[in-house]
Amino acid sequence: MANKSSKTKEISKLLELKDILSNKVNQNDVFNYSVPDLWNAWDYNGSEMVKTDWGELLVNPYNFYHEVINSYILPSKKADKDYTKSLSKINKNSKIDSEDYLGGDWIKQSIVYSIMIRTSTSWDHDRTGDLEIENLYSLKETGTFVKTIALLPLLKKMGIDTIYMLPISKFSLKDKKGELGSPYGVSNFFDLDPNLKDPITGDEFTVEDEFRAFVEACHMLDMRVMIDIIPRTNSVESDLIVDHPEWFYWIEKDSYNDYFPPMVPGVGSTVSPKKQYMPKVYQSEQVWDHISKFSFAPNIVDPNKWEDLVKDYLKKENASIIEMIEEAFGLTIAPAFSDHINDVQPPWTDVTFFRMYLDHPNETREYLKDKSVPPYILFDTIKSNLYKGDQPNNELWELLSDVIPYYQNKYGIDGARIDMGHALPSELLNMIIKKARDNDPDFCFIAEELEAENAETARNLGYNMIIGNGFTEEPRTYEHRLHAFMYDSRNLPCPVFACGETHDTPRLAAREGGRNLSKMLTIMNMFMPNGVPFINSGQEVYETQPMNTGLDSRPNEQYMLDQNDRYYGKLALFDKFAIHYLNHMRWDLADNLDKVSKIRSQHLDTFTNLENFVPIGFEHPGINAIGFGYVEALKKGQESDNVFLVIANTDPHNETHTNANLQELRKVSGNQAKQGRQLYSIHEGEREIFDFDHSWNLNLHLQPGEVRIIKL
Amino acid sequence: MANKSSKTKEISKLLELKDILSNKVNQNDVFNYSVPDLWNAWDYNGSEMVKTDWGELLVNPYNFYHEVINSYILPSKKADKDYTKSLSKINKNSKIDSEDYLGGDWIKQSIVYSIMIRTSTSWDHDRTGDLEIENLYSLKETGTFVKTIALLPLLKKMGIDTIYMLPISKFSLKDKKGELGSPYGVSNFFDLDPNLKDPITGDEFTVEDEFRAFVEACHMLDMRVMIDIIPRTNSVESDLIVDHPEWFYWIEKDSYNDYFPPMVPGVGSTVSPKKQYMPKVYQSEQVWDHISKFSFAPNIVDPNKWEDLVKDYLKKENASIIEMIEEAFGLTIAPAFSDHINDVQPPWTDVTFFRMYLDHPNETREYLKDKSVPPYILFDTIKSNLYKGDQPNNELWELLSDVIPYYQNKYGIDGARIDMGHALPSELLNMIIKKARDNDPDFCFIAEELEAENAETARNLGYNMIIGNGFTEEPRTYEHRLHAFMYDSRNLPCPVFACGETHDTPRLAAREGGRNLSKMLTIMNMFMPNGVPFINSGQEVYETQPMNTGLDSRPNEQYMLDQNDRYYGKLALFDKFAIHYLNHMRWDLADNLDKVSKIRSQHLDTFTNLENFVPIGFEHPGINAIGFGYVEALKKGQESDNVFLVIANTDPHNETHTNANLQELRKVSGNQAKQGRQLYSIHEGEREIFDFDHSWNLNLHLQPGEVRIIKL
Repeated sequence: MANKSSKTKEISKLLELKDILSNKVNQNDVFNYSVPDLWNAWDYNGSEMVKTDWGELLVNPYNFYHEVINSYILPSKKADKDYTKSLSKINKNSKIDSEDYLGGDWIKQSIVYSIMIRTSTSWDHDRTGDLEIENLYSLKETGTFVKTIALLPLLKKMGIDTIYMLPISKFSLKDKKGELGSPYGVSNFFDLDPNLKDPITGDEFTVEDEFRAFVEACHMLDMRVMIDIIPRTNSVESDLIVDHPEWFYWIEKDSYNDYFPPMVPGVGSTVSPKKQYMPKVYQSEQVWDHISKFSFAPNIVDPNKWEDLVKDYLKKENASIIEMIEEAFGLTIAPAFSDHINDVQPPWTDVTFFRMYLDHPNETREYLKDKSVPPYILFDTIKSNLYKGDQPNNELWELLSDVIPYYQNKYGIDGARIDMGHALPSELLNMIIKKARDNDPDFCFIAEELEAENAETARNLGYNMIIGNGFTEEPRTYEHRLHAFMYDSRNLPCPVFACGETHDTPRLAAREGGRNLSKMLTIMNMFMPNGVPFINSGQEVYETQPMNTGLDSRPNEQYMLDQNDRYYGKLALFDKFAIHYLNHMRWDLADNLDKVSKIRSQHLDTFTNLENFVPIGFEHPGINAIGFGYVEALKKGQESDNVFLVIANTDPHNETHTNANLQELRKVSGNQAKQGRQLYSIHEGEREIFDFDHSWNLNLHLQPGEVRIIKL
Repeated sequence: MANKSSKTKEISKLLELKDILSNKVNQNDVFNYSVPDLWNAWDYNGSEMVKTDWGELLVNPYNFYHEVINSYILPSKKADKDYTKSLSKINKNSKIDSEDYLGGDWIKQSIVYSIMIRTSTSWDHDRTGDLEIENLYSLKETGTFVKTIALLPLLKKMGIDTIYMLPISKFSLKDKKGELGSPYGVSNFFDLDPNLKDPITGDEFTVEDEFRAFVEACHMLDMRVMIDIIPRTNSVESDLIVDHPEWFYWIEKDSYNDYFPPMVPGVGSTVSPKKQYMPKVYQSEQVWDHISKFSFAPNIVDPNKWEDLVKDYLKKENASIIEMIEEAFGLTIAPAFSDHINDVQPPWTDVTFFRMYLDHPNETREYLKDKSVPPYILFDTIKSNLYKGDQPNNELWELLSDVIPYYQNKYGIDGARIDMGHALPSELLNMIIKKARDNDPDFCFIAEELEAENAETARNLGYNMIIGNGFTEEPRTYEHRLHAFMYDSRNLPCPVFACGETHDTPRLAAREGGRNLSKMLTIMNMFMPNGVPFINSGQEVYETQPMNTGLDSRPNEQYMLDQNDRYYGKLALFDKFAIHYLNHMRWDLADNLDKVSKIRSQHLDTFTNLENFVPIGFEHPGINAIGFGYVEALKKGQESDNVFLVIANTDPHNETHTNANLQELRKVSGNQAKQGRQLYSIHEGEREIFDFDHSWNLNLHLQPGEVRIIKL
């Protein structure tokens, strides 16, 4: 009986982690171990600490990481809560039963921080000039879950309440990109990336234990945790190959070097694989040449040989299944490529596509003279939401839809982004969403969907929000695409990310307008109607080097750093990279977000309900200013103290004198105040505002990129 | 008997130091302790070492400093030698009995390195941004004798064979200049500066032990050690005050703030205190006002009170004798000032003068209406070589002339520079030199004498050489003051320093011409006729920040560093300062000196005998080139292989095409070679030289600042 009870009660991995670290602290050991002072937004004050002039702190790492748990996280722990569950389960979301609430819609009131665990807590702790896997102190210098706990106080200060992690699953290093390989080349959904294991816990903890401790820590701080799952593609060295070779596409090894996305004449470049293009696709000579490179899976080509190979493989340690297949069968996994016809991108050599159907697509089967050709990767088979077959790969679908429940049950995660969800059959997507919500009705889904026009489809599929295209629109302030994006997105049936950069795009601080632009957008995003504020790791310190050059990149995007910078040309998604946490402006955005996010959270319902929003116009539409009005619903009709103005000079280079038109806002709210209180400005403290004109509109003199929040 | 023998046998402190370090090595301790790679010119290769990209090495300091002794120094040790004696005693200089050899003349063939122990091995070993007295590892970050041992291999590589140290005696911190105080304010001749003690040896070694170990290490490497002694001035808080208050000048404490060098109308500014000026001096009202501030020493003012005060002082720990005197008597020590009349320099608040005579000067006594005025500091009493009294301060003179024998007997030093020797009575100087040479006939003396015209006087007094004024002349290449200095100095009766910078002057690399100038001069100085090559610590890495702004300084001399440099505005003589050992050109001069000094030492007698020297002219005297010819004496009359040319383009900015006139050189040597071998050039490797004109003169195309050494 005692045994049973101890099994059902969840053990707190965070408390265990605290004890492990505590036991390893030896106050006599001398550590010359450096962390950026930004990692100490929680006032660590160990007697051994040395503060340098340039923003590094020298600490005893055991003490330091122990103390953040002990003195910052645990005081928020409540005795009766089980922090290994999702935050909605812990706190029992009261909205879950309202009619217009879709489970997971808590995201509408969240502020999201996008983190790459491997990168965001990378640091040259021993200052040898390299990010070692094992440094002078046998500690890891790339990022880990344990170290990320020390970053939480900074995120909390900025108002972050949701942490979205780039993939954390095991990935393959075969044909890897860069120094470390991309975490998007997942080789096993159910294993975590072993590189995220922190040696600071020794053998006493697994990386899984560390992730659980991390999620608990987030939950104690009322922060949610979301993962990134990738059901459409998989590593070319997936662990699934051994048991399920027929789930993959195969080509002759000899044709590997000639393998590329086939050109289709007469359709233009980089076009969606719409059905009207399919006749032209199947008329292309290159397409037929491409199809001819494919083969049936090795277990179909020669079942006996396959059986022997697998037996052989299981006997060997550290053998590579794909290399063995290449040698024995002359076959290899076919690399993936873009679903767009005539895209300029080369093949994605580290990943392949799953075979979603076991037969050829219904819509294009007619073009195959020989129906018995082996399964092949092409624009139609990639886009399996549009081009379905008759025989769903049920066993694969079951597995893919079991991934999220596994992470829910084991780690208590709160939501997920679905990578390339737009290329999944809707039936599969339904399975994925349903299984997750059966498990946790308030589980949030984010669609990897950039186009506003697809928001409705996404919402209908069960997604809570789409990513949207803020990162291309917001920085283009002079073209007023910022205005269009921020105003028009309120008409969408679900929110989009209010963001100016992501891990795939240029950094705001590296755009025209630099830090002024980044600061203005980062603050305005906190108030964008129907926007979910989103901060990309590094954005808060005005990082200029992108993590990837996937989207909206300029030709020199990879080279934003000084040539003498040790990370010149490095991309976090593939390489060893540490964010420039020592930048002298490193506390600027955090300090500003601290103020702004407090205003937002004090009036969260006002700012996140679209019905309260009134756009603010200026003298004429060409002015480089933008303004949001928000009416406090319960105070409607009051003559004062019921209206917020959030106004920015969208020009990062020039000051502006302008006049904010408050007619509509006053009409809607009843507000007649001729005096206001400025709650926040980039350049000023709080003060009273009197400068209204004869029509009670507000005269403004705004510095470049200045944002003001005013209460009337 | 056993006891007696163990007392007479000298124990090697270097071997003891090695053992102390060896015993403290713990290979399990992790050290993140950094040294510049320049400190490892001896190929340390500890398995724990991490090499950074920027020139720092991370090492276990116990291992590192142990290994330089063990693997670099000790292999040069010969069993039968006692390295605690001077090198001349160890090796028995055969020249000592030649007629024209003055004991100490070995300096004529030396290459001298001027080092300031406190500064030259300062390093932020734990990289906390500060030069701590006790760093993370409880080790010292300012310089020490122990650390300087690791610098010897670099000096050896550069051809250095004589180390001249700025003062290493205990100095006072009263009214100290800068962060650390100047080592020129000596408070006790017989104690070493306790700040030079290295905590790496713990309690097992005193700073005296460490200095002895250092001298032994130098001697094992055939390097001599010279000290800087300062017999004319002393700290205002000298340890001698307690026993000998009457050796000092006293003023009323109340007049301290009005104390300054008195103006003398009608003689001009900054003039030597020649006898013809004395009437005017003693007509000046300010002079009389100045004299009126002086008092008799406290023991004369009130002998009983003095006796009580001394008793009281001896009872207290850490009491300040001068503060007690100030309180009890209202008297304080009179600060020193320049011996030049109407000099602009303010008083030297940290030092005073010794009273060399116990009566007023013979020559100026007549001007005193009241012969019983207290002793006073004035231009005549300062310049006690010119203005003697009848009553020499014999007890003081004995003490001052015992300083060098003390250092000879205790440490085995090889020579000394006498600070302000020109202001000492000749009888005292004779005592100092005689006692030292009685002890060690080959002991070298360097006069702090900048004027060439005083070289003869200095030589007659027993000095081996004077400092000279190379540091003002050499950098002025465009005015051909370099030419004048280098050619004319050969007529002097003793050598001068062949140098472009000292610890008191601007850095060569900070002069017009920068690194090109510094490199050209540093190399040419190796061959200057009648010059003793002299390198100022930091010069070898193109340091730009001076150690002091005493001589030939420009108005902004103190601010040669970038404003963001952590040592911006710091002067090594007073402040915490580390030489910029990480400069990317840090190995350039050392590598060049390695080659050049080898050529010099292989033909040392040729290059250091003035009789072998023939100046090389060019088309006309205005050309920015300089050339030295040296004839190998024993090969005179041979038609080839008997002549060296050392030629430089003295213009650091522009290349030059010129023609070296070899007529005189060929005449003197008999050389008729029409082919030569270039042994060295800044820009090229070794090669054959053929480019002679019809008169067998040499055509040259020289890059800016290029130096070439050619053998014909």
